[in-house]
Amino acid sequence: MIELAAALARVEEVAAALRPRRVPLMAAVGRTLVAAIEAAGDSPPWDRAMMDGFAVRNADLAADGTAILDVVVDLAAGDVSGISIAPGGCARIMTGAPLPPGADAVVPVECAVEGTAEAHAGGQVRLCDRRFRPGQHVARRATAFGRGDTVLPAGSRLSPAAVGVAVEAGATHVLVLPPPRVAILSTGSELVPPDAEPGFGQTRNSNGPMLRAAVLAAGGDPVPLGIVGDRPEALRAAVAQGLAADVVVLSGGVSAGDLDLVPIVCADCGVEEVFHKVRLKPGKPVWFGCHRRGDGQSLVFGLPGNPASSLVCFELFVRPALAIMAGVPAGGWHLPRVAAVLTASARAAADRPIYAPCRVRRTSGGITAEPLPWSGSADLVGLAVAEGLLVLPAGAGTLAAGATVEVVVRDGHRVEGW
Amino acid sequence: MIELAAALARVEEVAAALRPRRVPLMAAVGRTLVAAIEAAGDSPPWDRAMMDGFAVRNADLAADGTAILDVVVDLAAGDVSGISIAPGGCARIMTGAPLPPGADAVVPVECAVEGTAEAHAGGQVRLCDRRFRPGQHVARRATAFGRGDTVLPAGSRLSPAAVGVAVEAGATHVLVLPPPRVAILSTGSELVPPDAEPGFGQTRNSNGPMLRAAVLAAGGDPVPLGIVGDRPEALRAAVAQGLAADVVVLSGGVSAGDLDLVPIVCADCGVEEVFHKVRLKPGKPVWFGCHRRGDGQSLVFGLPGNPASSLVCFELFVRPALAIMAGVPAGGWHLPRVAAVLTASARAAADRPIYAPCRVRRTSGGITAEPLPWSGSADLVGLAVAEGLLVLPAGAGTLAAGATVEVVVRDGHRVEGW
Repeated sequence: MIELAAALARVEEVAAALRPRRVPLMAAVGRTLVAAIEAAGDSPPWDRAMMDGFAVRNADLAADGTAILDVVVDLAAGDVSGISIAPGGCARIMTGAPLPPGADAVVPVECAVEGTAEAHAGGQVRLCDRRFRPGQHVARRATAFGRGDTVLPAGSRLSPAAVGVAVEAGATHVLVLPPPRVAILSTGSELVPPDAEPGFGQTRNSNGPMLRAAVLAAGGDPVPLGIVGDRPEALRAAVAQGLAADVVVLSGGVSAGDLDLVPIVCADCGVEEVFHKVRLKPGKPVWFGCHRRGDGQSLVFGLPGNPASSLVCFELFVRPALAIMAGVPAGGWHLPRVAAVLTASARAAADRPIYAPCRVRRTSGGITAEPLPWSGSADLVGLAVAEGLLVLPAGAGTLAAGATVEVVVRDGHRVEGW
Repeated sequence: MIELAAALARVEEVAAALRPRRVPLMAAVGRTLVAAIEAAGDSPPWDRAMMDGFAVRNADLAADGTAILDVVVDLAAGDVSGISIAPGGCARIMTGAPLPPGADAVVPVECAVEGTAEAHAGGQVRLCDRRFRPGQHVARRATAFGRGDTVLPAGSRLSPAAVGVAVEAGATHVLVLPPPRVAILSTGSELVPPDAEPGFGQTRNSNGPMLRAAVLAAGGDPVPLGIVGDRPEALRAAVAQGLAADVVVLSGGVSAGDLDLVPIVCADCGVEEVFHKVRLKPGKPVWFGCHRRGDGQSLVFGLPGNPASSLVCFELFVRPALAIMAGVPAGGWHLPRVAAVLTASARAAADRPIYAPCRVRRTSGGITAEPLPWSGSADLVGLAVAEGLLVLPAGAGTLAAGATVEVVVRDGHRVEGW
């Protein structure tokens, strides 16, 4: 039995970033770049009109911003012509089109004198732009970035804006850390699939779907392997199959019972135990090991079979491992913890810290934590309505209402006011 | 041209929750329940052993928690036997197994006197549990919930814990609001696909992939429809195809140019204009309409073609519409706004509010906003590194460093310290 802090430190030590993979840009949305993206060309690639209007020569406009010009060509975005703008001429131009040779600026169509705004090639336009500045409304070549410039440094997250920048820079494939693949295995001969009608003595496999949802929420790629009964050969085969993934998450089979086979079978499969049993409630029986191979490693988590224990252990131990594997920088590995004021008294245990479900609220007086009714490791209903886990340190006795406590804020829950 | 607040109010008015759909539980992870889940049976369905050990009769234990008992049956989880426990007898039992008739409590295996802990059916066990309480380590039938109880009320989010509860309650399918389907269409004859090499005058379609990522981040289901050139017939066909989705997001074609066809073509397709042009920078040309049918409606957003304008308009206008359609309660529709202290001066415009990219930091003195270099509506690079959008109200002049400003915090960015 080890302390929680020591157990978390071991998980952080053993977990390592996955190997980067080159994937199509759209398969990498939301992921973190391992290598910087350098521009394949200039942006804009040529001087670009930024308004709909008339491409003019600076020198042709009088000091008061007026000019009478011949429209020599019409240029929509995408249109290209070899025609240059000579003195006294201009081009009718649309946003996004390349500025024709000879022109320096764009006068918006709104600044054409009434009756002449519709002038096309062959016609004449009268302009009056009192605020005219030479070179206006033109994005000059390479002013966003030049060929070879780093447009997104390594470590950038591929946000929607970053995706747009990557396309603009000509990146079709990017190097990212893939989401960790997580094999999920529910152990127990009493289990039946979620959609089956359990007979007497049987229980629906709720841990499998719950952990699958938890893996998704933590950014992993779940590989559901279903149920395996309490027989060593069957469990050995299932664990061996699971080891093809980056992580194996088992539930059940880690307590003191005759049929708690996970530690033994994992050892048989070459998984080296890192720790077994942590001073923690719920979740004491949790097991953690690592399977090292020439080409990498798989982490194996044996979570308790009781659903609330299983989920609390997932959030405390598996989540940071997945974050480290996905290249999340330190500081983003764990669920956030905040200081909160207890709204009612709560009793700590003598021997180990309790992580108990609570409501979390932001009030004018700060953040509050309201302990929720909860009957312990099998009580998932109590956990499902909680926004946070209240940390009751070992040996703290009864904490009175008004005491300041630490709260782990669950994923998907912003404290109100945020 | 309308004010931003009025435009947002119109979007909120017109957007409506989608029709609920009954889907398999695992297809609904993370979504909001439209109908409560009621338990199909009791949980636990029978009195269940909560520890590995021996199922005993309360009356058989002496006041000091000792007993010498005959083991009459071995019960693993999933095992069922008709054998009752008579006085002086007990069952070897594993966590999760039904308590046999006659037994009232479980004594953990750790409380068996050394040498007798291994006793199986036919053997004898000597127990010594100084802290024995009658009925201990048994989860009584229906104590988590009873058949017909509401285990998850309407409005619950299907978090991992809620998924587990739903399985436990026997729910295989649930009624949820589906993610809104969002057709994405980039308009402009100058556009080429992201993986093509643009010729002179051509531009890669960066808005399409960027908006696809933005739809994903906002919880929508993107339907990418590619590029359509600036020809009315082609655009009309593409919009008509898009109207099969819940939302159509177009980029480009909404300015004052000759080829800005979106408003006209949308009208041709029976899309009623709600507003066109909003007092806002970037994003002034934004267009919004609604296509009503007998069986519902599709919302149509004409975003500006400049990528930064397009994304800012997505976050301000499209995001809340998607949230409303997905049944998110009011308060969760928009990106969060916080008050922050400017780290450097920033200049507002006279005529319309500016939403400019900034860094957001939580310091000991509060939240700070650092304006980022940004050249305007075409500058996506400046937006890609921003954690927030600094709001510079119209006519506010130059805001000095130290002034308090409002900041829209972008998705996926927690302010540090959170």
